[in-house]
Amino acid sequence: MINQQILLANRPTGTPTKQTFKFVESDVKQPEQGEILVRSLYVSVDPYMRGRMVDAPSYVAPYELNEVITGGVVAEVVESQSDKFTKGDVVIGSYGWQTHYTAKETEIRKIDKEIAPLSTHLGILGMTGLTAYFGLLEIGKPQEGETVVISGAAGAVGSAVGQIARIKGARVVGIAGSDEKVQYLKEELGFDEAINYKTTTNMVDALAAACPNGVDVYFDNVGGEISDAVHTQLNRFARIPICGAISSYNLKGEDVGPRIQTTLVKKSALMQGFTLGNYAERFPEGSAALAQWLTEGKLSYQETIKEGFENIPDTFLDLFKGTNIGKLLVKVADVTNE
Amino acid sequence: MINQQILLANRPTGTPTKQTFKFVESDVKQPEQGEILVRSLYVSVDPYMRGRMVDAPSYVAPYELNEVITGGVVAEVVESQSDKFTKGDVVIGSYGWQTHYTAKETEIRKIDKEIAPLSTHLGILGMTGLTAYFGLLEIGKPQEGETVVISGAAGAVGSAVGQIARIKGARVVGIAGSDEKVQYLKEELGFDEAINYKTTTNMVDALAAACPNGVDVYFDNVGGEISDAVHTQLNRFARIPICGAISSYNLKGEDVGPRIQTTLVKKSALMQGFTLGNYAERFPEGSAALAQWLTEGKLSYQETIKEGFENIPDTFLDLFKGTNIGKLLVKVADVTNE
Repeated sequence: MINQQILLANRPTGTPTKQTFKFVESDVKQPEQGEILVRSLYVSVDPYMRGRMVDAPSYVAPYELNEVITGGVVAEVVESQSDKFTKGDVVIGSYGWQTHYTAKETEIRKIDKEIAPLSTHLGILGMTGLTAYFGLLEIGKPQEGETVVISGAAGAVGSAVGQIARIKGARVVGIAGSDEKVQYLKEELGFDEAINYKTTTNMVDALAAACPNGVDVYFDNVGGEISDAVHTQLNRFARIPICGAISSYNLKGEDVGPRIQTTLVKKSALMQGFTLGNYAERFPEGSAALAQWLTEGKLSYQETIKEGFENIPDTFLDLFKGTNIGKLLVKVADVTNE
Repeated sequence: MINQQILLANRPTGTPTKQTFKFVESDVKQPEQGEILVRSLYVSVDPYMRGRMVDAPSYVAPYELNEVITGGVVAEVVESQSDKFTKGDVVIGSYGWQTHYTAKETEIRKIDKEIAPLSTHLGILGMTGLTAYFGLLEIGKPQEGETVVISGAAGAVGSAVGQIARIKGARVVGIAGSDEKVQYLKEELGFDEAINYKTTTNMVDALAAACPNGVDVYFDNVGGEISDAVHTQLNRFARIPICGAISSYNLKGEDVGPRIQTTLVKKSALMQGFTLGNYAERFPEGSAALAQWLTEGKLSYQETIKEGFENIPDTFLDLFKGTNIGKLLVKVADVTNE
């Protein structure tokens, strides 16, 4: 049996290209005692992966050159030498961009096939949903009647943040990059307002109009000039969870703009970066809450699912074009018994 | 009896000048029932006053044009029509740059003449000491063995922050603007390291050498390029209380530099602006702790006291030259019974 893998061929400066990646094939390693051979079904592509492609200090180690790009995968057990897993089980792991993997028992976790489509375990019930849950509730702490602004609002994390903020009784304003996304946020997800930053000439004015009572929580996925504009509308004691700064990831030069210190002092505002791993001990709590809201119909999600292992790099590059709505992932194979 | 006052004559752009201020004289208003006539002894000049001279939204209302510049004053009761105050009492108030004031009972507070020199109630036992106490302990939360870096370290707030951090068992590194200040921090206040940013060509390297275990808490008084350099040395879960950004106050253009979001995400770091008023309910706790440390000899302070009401504007302008060590204030009159 052949395992297809995608390796990091070289470290990108600026936007990654096809040459950043290299496809290789190797024999699948047969599982030994305590190991499980799995076959990938859905592979996740996420913005944070861009950060791991460069060799700089960060919250996770950089990818090694000529090693497989790791990240979330939903997979099916093909062969088990462990009494914890059975052929046909569906599992989640972090082994990344490859069609097969021989996992140790501790490297994968069984998921419930009945609760929702399998792909949601990489999205709304997985990393992106939990990122929204902990970042918003632990740092943003939205109160009933407060105004929550979200950048990258139609993305996988942003769309969950807005819905959770609404569940908590906040007024929710999203910023996104197309009229289609704006319509999705307002009509499908019930955002109170949404702004297309690409067609808005004055973001400060647009935000002031959309947030007549100012901004209490700003969930920041993008950084850059969009965030500069939101910072002008902060209320006293505003909270700013920083989830990412996708606008800067592919910059070749420095990410330069207005320094934030004076604004933070004037508003007694808080800005805090985070990564999901900070909350690892509380994942069961977060997953349970997300699953319940999903079941109750309070939380909806959208996925953009591309097909085919060979399309993983292109799908990853799509993240930075801002064209996708919701969680972006790649379907690599059908589940056997579906 | 004549009251001398200093008014805001016009709003400065860039560094204030003598023309920013106007001296006027008026008759002292005799106290009515419930009022107290006081005579100023020490007048405080503080960096935050620069912010109030412009008409922009901030945590305190801007000064009105042609009104007295308000701020902390230690004064002596000249005549009391209140049963809460007696002639000769020493009080603290916020009525600002004038030689006399007719206060309502609620506008002034009696201070203990015995505990320490009267001037300390504007400094280490007053606004600056409390600012250090709450900003460091409530936001910075230094733990034993952690590294705390302080900019504007030889200033009134910074020098108190460093000493409190040492009381809490942290390693303390100060950044200041002269060799004299560096010597003061290391030899008088017991800082572990101090850096003269004016003679250091590479602040990043200097900080890396002074903080071999990285930076856990950065108490920021200055903003600007000094802070940019400190941000390169942050540890995971670092905390950054933002007390002020004196480097930017007199800028005519925008305060532009590297955006901070990516750093905050990579380090799961927290940055929070604050002003002392946020902690008003807890002033008694802070004052008691500061007084105790002072009495125990764990906390020392330095003051730069200029003489003469007419020198208040020049002394205020000295703040931005960075020449003073410790708390800067102006002695306006001797206490009667000293």
